[in-house]
Amino acid sequence: MLGTGGGGDPYIGALLATEALRRHGDVTVVTLAEVPDDAVVLTVAMMGAPTVMVEKLPSLDEVVAPVHALGAYLGRPVTHIACAEVGGVNSTIPVAAAAALGLPLLDADGMGRAFPELQMVLPTLYGVTASPLAFSDEKGNTGVLQTVDNSWTERIARVACVEMGCSVMISGFPMSGAQAREALVPASLSRCIEIGRTITGARHEKADPVQRTVQLLGGRELFAGKVVDVQRATTTGFARGSARVEGTDGAVTLSFQNEHLIAEAAGRTLATTPDLIMVLEHDSGEPITTEGLRYGQRVRIISAPSDERWHSPDALAMVGPGYFGYDIPAHRYDGAVELHDTPTTAALGETAA
Amino acid sequence: MLGTGGGGDPYIGALLATEALRRHGDVTVVTLAEVPDDAVVLTVAMMGAPTVMVEKLPSLDEVVAPVHALGAYLGRPVTHIACAEVGGVNSTIPVAAAAALGLPLLDADGMGRAFPELQMVLPTLYGVTASPLAFSDEKGNTGVLQTVDNSWTERIARVACVEMGCSVMISGFPMSGAQAREALVPASLSRCIEIGRTITGARHEKADPVQRTVQLLGGRELFAGKVVDVQRATTTGFARGSARVEGTDGAVTLSFQNEHLIAEAAGRTLATTPDLIMVLEHDSGEPITTEGLRYGQRVRIISAPSDERWHSPDALAMVGPGYFGYDIPAHRYDGAVELHDTPTTAALGETAA
Repeated sequence: MLGTGGGGDPYIGALLATEALRRHGDVTVVTLAEVPDDAVVLTVAMMGAPTVMVEKLPSLDEVVAPVHALGAYLGRPVTHIACAEVGGVNSTIPVAAAAALGLPLLDADGMGRAFPELQMVLPTLYGVTASPLAFSDEKGNTGVLQTVDNSWTERIARVACVEMGCSVMISGFPMSGAQAREALVPASLSRCIEIGRTITGARHEKADPVQRTVQLLGGRELFAGKVVDVQRATTTGFARGSARVEGTDGAVTLSFQNEHLIAEAAGRTLATTPDLIMVLEHDSGEPITTEGLRYGQRVRIISAPSDERWHSPDALAMVGPGYFGYDIPAHRYDGAVELHDTPTTAALGETAA
Repeated sequence: MLGTGGGGDPYIGALLATEALRRHGDVTVVTLAEVPDDAVVLTVAMMGAPTVMVEKLPSLDEVVAPVHALGAYLGRPVTHIACAEVGGVNSTIPVAAAAALGLPLLDADGMGRAFPELQMVLPTLYGVTASPLAFSDEKGNTGVLQTVDNSWTERIARVACVEMGCSVMISGFPMSGAQAREALVPASLSRCIEIGRTITGARHEKADPVQRTVQLLGGRELFAGKVVDVQRATTTGFARGSARVEGTDGAVTLSFQNEHLIAEAAGRTLATTPDLIMVLEHDSGEPITTEGLRYGQRVRIISAPSDERWHSPDALAMVGPGYFGYDIPAHRYDGAVELHDTPTTAALGETAA
């Protein structure tokens, strides 16, 4: 849900995490408050185009390889694993890494959502450097980068990632416990579990999972309709494209780069990055990844506020619509509902419930 | 001369070496026989397109950065510096590195010529791995790669190099003294000095520097004429192209990827990689780099045998014409001279001399 369409198919990550837990036992999850100030925290993530990730499930060896490489480079034992983003494979692959490494996992992440580029995490805004950052592929190649800023880490790691097959495992953003407490989004893993329980609970009660999710996230349903067109290309290491969803009263266009970035209808912007835009299966509320969008899917589009820190000027320069090439201001969906966004939910009987 | 048109403009490297010697004092040059078996030898080189190298002179800090990064990675003190190739900037940049680091330099190199890709050194044939290999740019970014084979080092380092501005400093191929003795081409720096002395000596004596060079190298003059066309593009990190040289009795086409690879006349192959093909200024015998080729230059094309080890089947698979996409066998120029390759030298009065 919080992956906003990107971060790779969570099913892939779940398979890997399940296997790691089966083989290595449970993972201890600790809150940010419990992390010692002098902890050595690393993020672990899969980097690449989700369109490729779904076809290239990493092995557990590949998942832990960049952590070992980075630990050796740092010359200090790694004490905790953290999620760089939440949603997609990148909220479950750290579970696999923590299990295989026998390390505790933080109940936190670097974004409170997913973003396509490596530097796009709140720690960047707190001066935490992405490098030293290690990357590894399934062939056994690894590398460690030490760069002058997080954008250069992204640039060099991205071209290496593309050359290595458009999907690699990375570990970076070494942080002390004190830095992690300041820079990460707290309790995101708990939040994911809460969202999952809300959706399955609603299904069980024959209530509307989408409405329940919107309520939980403090968000809003933007539109409901059918996917009538998907343009998608895997270029420069990303899954880029757009999708058109038609409803009874118009159409909404979604633009994405791994994650959904912009939702607009008839020239009117409904929601933009950094706020969250999700496409959910109409009845079940199951989130659909951008690479999973298909012609004919009946969907509902919802938006939800991001972590407030993403709306600072520095943050918007890094992840706002302008960075991605859209000449529109960052927008929060808070206006009157001009599009009919409820007829389909009414048809489900949820409005009266 | 031995750079066969590639390796970057040696003038750039000479500037850097001169400055390093002025600032740090003389460099001790040792023969392969003098290197202790347990020495830690690293090669230092500039990687990239010569067309870019000539516009991006590295600082001494940039030259030593990958050696420091690789030394830290290895966890052992580096004891000797070696040239990966000989000719171009890459026979003088190691002088600068050795001076700045206060380390001895080997009188040897990895090829006895220059080749465009990183894995194309004799040590690859002896099982010496290119990685761990470090790379650094002028901005302060560095990386260390550990790959499964030397071709993967080339692939990942090349895309990083292109992203970092198409020219970076690298250090790699860590070797023991024993390995260096077996795998490197001995006495190449001495050879360069000998070639330089031959050319300047011939000029001084009003003799023909080209003929003297051909004699010294055991090679042959292939053709003399004027450069009438140069096609050149800097693509995928290389200077690729071809040049057409017209003489009184036909024309020769040279194909290059950083270095000259093929010389042919009217469909007949005159010389191919791995043998050396050089383009020299007609009268002075000054070698012309592939990025220095210009319309109207009066030139002479010569060839010379490579180190014999380059003609083994494994070596030809790595550096023969087929690898570069030419469907012709590796060829040694040893046939009768069907093209008039001497009229212009006769015009110089050298034939009679």
